[in-house]
Amino acid sequence: MDRKTSSDPLRRRLRRLSRGEQSEEARAFIRRFHRENELSDVLRRRRESQALRELRRFGWYEHTPEEIAFGARMAWRHSSRCIGRLHWRSLDVVDCRNVVEPDEIASSVFDHLAAAFNGGEIRSVITIFAPVKNDVLPAYIESRQAIQYAGWSSPGLRTIGDPLNIEVTRIVERLGWKSVGDDPQFEVLPLLIRDRNQRRSIHSIPRRVLHEVPITHPRHSMVGELGLRWYAVPCVSGMILTIGGVDYPCAPFNGHYMGTEIASRNLADERRYNFLGAVARGIGLDFEDEIPLWKDHALLALNEAVLHSFQRAGVKIADHHTESDRYMDFVERERADGRQPAADWAWITPPQAAPACPVFHMKMSDQHPVPNFYRDRGSDGAMLRPEYADVDRWRYADRWDRFRFRFRRWRHRRDGFRR
Amino acid sequence: MDRKTSSDPLRRRLRRLSRGEQSEEARAFIRRFHRENELSDVLRRRRESQALRELRRFGWYEHTPEEIAFGARMAWRHSSRCIGRLHWRSLDVVDCRNVVEPDEIASSVFDHLAAAFNGGEIRSVITIFAPVKNDVLPAYIESRQAIQYAGWSSPGLRTIGDPLNIEVTRIVERLGWKSVGDDPQFEVLPLLIRDRNQRRSIHSIPRRVLHEVPITHPRHSMVGELGLRWYAVPCVSGMILTIGGVDYPCAPFNGHYMGTEIASRNLADERRYNFLGAVARGIGLDFEDEIPLWKDHALLALNEAVLHSFQRAGVKIADHHTESDRYMDFVERERADGRQPAADWAWITPPQAAPACPVFHMKMSDQHPVPNFYRDRGSDGAMLRPEYADVDRWRYADRWDRFRFRFRRWRHRRDGFRR
Repeated sequence: MDRKTSSDPLRRRLRRLSRGEQSEEARAFIRRFHRENELSDVLRRRRESQALRELRRFGWYEHTPEEIAFGARMAWRHSSRCIGRLHWRSLDVVDCRNVVEPDEIASSVFDHLAAAFNGGEIRSVITIFAPVKNDVLPAYIESRQAIQYAGWSSPGLRTIGDPLNIEVTRIVERLGWKSVGDDPQFEVLPLLIRDRNQRRSIHSIPRRVLHEVPITHPRHSMVGELGLRWYAVPCVSGMILTIGGVDYPCAPFNGHYMGTEIASRNLADERRYNFLGAVARGIGLDFEDEIPLWKDHALLALNEAVLHSFQRAGVKIADHHTESDRYMDFVERERADGRQPAADWAWITPPQAAPACPVFHMKMSDQHPVPNFYRDRGSDGAMLRPEYADVDRWRYADRWDRFRFRFRRWRHRRDGFRR
Repeated sequence: MDRKTSSDPLRRRLRRLSRGEQSEEARAFIRRFHRENELSDVLRRRRESQALRELRRFGWYEHTPEEIAFGARMAWRHSSRCIGRLHWRSLDVVDCRNVVEPDEIASSVFDHLAAAFNGGEIRSVITIFAPVKNDVLPAYIESRQAIQYAGWSSPGLRTIGDPLNIEVTRIVERLGWKSVGDDPQFEVLPLLIRDRNQRRSIHSIPRRVLHEVPITHPRHSMVGELGLRWYAVPCVSGMILTIGGVDYPCAPFNGHYMGTEIASRNLADERRYNFLGAVARGIGLDFEDEIPLWKDHALLALNEAVLHSFQRAGVKIADHHTESDRYMDFVERERADGRQPAADWAWITPPQAAPACPVFHMKMSDQHPVPNFYRDRGSDGAMLRPEYADVDRWRYADRWDRFRFRFRRWRHRRDGFRR
């Protein structure tokens, strides 16, 4: 099995940890889990030695349901590029570690999407499937997001759909998928799953869990006639969740959208849908006038349109000012709990009206703590490590404990002998 | 003298280089100067040994006029936070190293401002005064910019003017300056100079070199009624120019404005003029409607107003899209010359419509090369160092030269003996 899967592209993305590093992450995670949940030292020591024993013997260890739920929430809390971490404690964790067949994985993901949509009042959910067990890879989702739009390009012709997904569109077409929708610009791709034996399969997203919002502008009806739309639930399925030295490559999670993600990037970027010119014409900008800031006008109109459309459709979305304020609350709460949040300024700062958001003026630093999510050991996975303060703090505590224990035993024996 | 000036705040801002580091920077600079200007190796070696001899003996060395001009241009080229470096070669360098009296310094700065304004077609100019000579500080300008607006705050009352300059306003008022202008919001401060003997003096900016632009909006006349204005020439006077191990703490330089500097930051930031609310009312935004993106509308209107007003006044200004394209040209030209420009993404990326500018999507890295400008050894001065590739490349070249020289001498002697 191990040999057969050696060509799996996932293997190249997984972090390579030595057994010592793996134990270190396991220890740091178990300690922090017990500390933050105010569990007793006795429990902590018992669980720690048990986990390390398992790790030594089998090359991995099994998290308890409480550990995996807490680990996933910590991973969100540590996501340095995410502005929406205020409610990290309320992440819904669905434990699907025993689900291994592609069909069942797909159906769990569809349940996830339904639970996440929640009638428009979008909930943050993560579904966690089997981990990597001592180098044996589980089945996992190859799609970057559970819901995403197809893309096609051919030399000389204009790109249709989302240029980001041209490669994955080609793959699912080779596996037999056919575009059937009425609008090739926004055609939802099937879920692409690779099973334990390297076999790929595709699974169409059922209509009942697929919610899309047509984009219209409150004042410019021409923008609505462009036929833009976007899906309601951004569900990232291509990242690896790492908790205490164990990697979960199949752990799709979702939050709700911040307007700029759709309006300032997905629909606007030249290398994505590139709709700024069309929107500028839609809001009646006269290019003859050579307005130097026409792109700024188009971006603002598109942001208004996206926020307006989601609100009108009853789908939860946040504007960048609100989300920036929430992030400041998050930082304050974390500091009150004695933690300095890991943050990546270039990602946290919204791409629209940045200086008017308080996060723009804040210093940030990224300690790359684990548990966390990563895409690739070559990029965001490369720097991940436990917070050494943790490891050290407990190392000394340990020594002190051991010393006390020995001292007591010695006194006990001495007193025993004397008695 | 040395003892007397030990309390000078400048001393705490200057980089502390060991004699070895200073020689290293001198050597790297002289080598690069000769290489980029295609001067002969003989000249380079002669100049190098002369400068290093001077440095060893006196603790500093004197740059030739060509060196100082080239060094200042390199310092601009290396300014990792500046988006407008395309025309670094065309920087006008005014050599005022022999000007030491505060009155003369002030009058040279006024000449600088006049030459820079250039009838609205703003030119990039730097005026360089005396360097630090072996720990002896020269006179220097304490004002952050040559032209800047006063600011006053008192507890309970609203801040008047530019909050950034409250401290310097207090200082010049203690030195006898009195606000006399008609508009306390935009009152130009006098130049604050500290001479070699720690004495401060103030020098009013003459009207003939002071050019301001009243801000109006092409469509919203109410914005014009807010009475906003800004000065035409941004002339940074509070940074230290460092060339080849020698520091010039008095080297005011200017470029032209990019619109966002005034519109998205100086007039908009909550900790600066904080005019977004007033502008939003000026463009007729109805706050009753609870428009979530009213700040975005105000920012865009203010950016339009600033660009429009400068253009109407015939004063050179650039919008962020143009400046971003120019920066891409700069990067291309630098790479063609075999150099990777040092760049700080958070500063290069414009604060308005960032994803629509190509610089947003570019990876950048800051090698902190010298020559450069810095404010403080505790912040931007801390990481400055010569590019080691340079030093190494020349070190090996040197060895090879020496080897060839010895070999020739040896052959010459051998042949001489044989003859």
